[in-house]
Amino acid sequence: MNFSVQVKVMPLKELLDPQGKAVMGGLQNLGIKTVQDVRIGKTIQLQVDASSSDEAKKIAEEASRKLLANPVMEYYEITIN
Amino acid sequence: MNFSVQVKVMPLKELLDPQGKAVMGGLQNLGIKTVQDVRIGKTIQLQVDASSSDEAKKIAEEASRKLLANPVMEYYEITIN
Repeated sequence: MNFSVQVKVMPLKELLDPQGKAVMGGLQNLGIKTVQDVRIGKTIQLQVDASSSDEAKKIAEEASRKLLANPVMEYYEITIN
Repeated sequence: MNFSVQVKVMPLKELLDPQGKAVMGGLQNLGIKTVQDVRIGKTIQLQVDASSSDEAKKIAEEASRKLLANPVMEYYEITIN
């Protein structure tokens, strides 16, 4: 069976996110002043061939650990849709 | 009130995603061969000051339209958590 797995990779909360800060500055220049913080990460959509959603999640977990996320700077969340 | 709004920006389905293709190649080199497709987009977490979640969503919608997403190449989805 084919599962669509979403991996969200975000910068750790303890770290500065200069890309997010730049976007926040851009929003304020456009007149959107009610946004108080912006953090930017990645969304990775995987199409995984697996026999169960548990197995699909395990594969996504392995992919995140080995390639998609850098644990020194990022954390990840896996959801199956 | 403070709302945490998530904007997911993904490349349009009709378009090639070379970054995703590169990651898929990387996964296969690592021995993860059950992943059949990879697409990579952005996740933007906004902290929005608004009186209701509807208003927060409207602000995120405006931000996405004006700055966060390029409608020629990307679509976006807004969720409030």
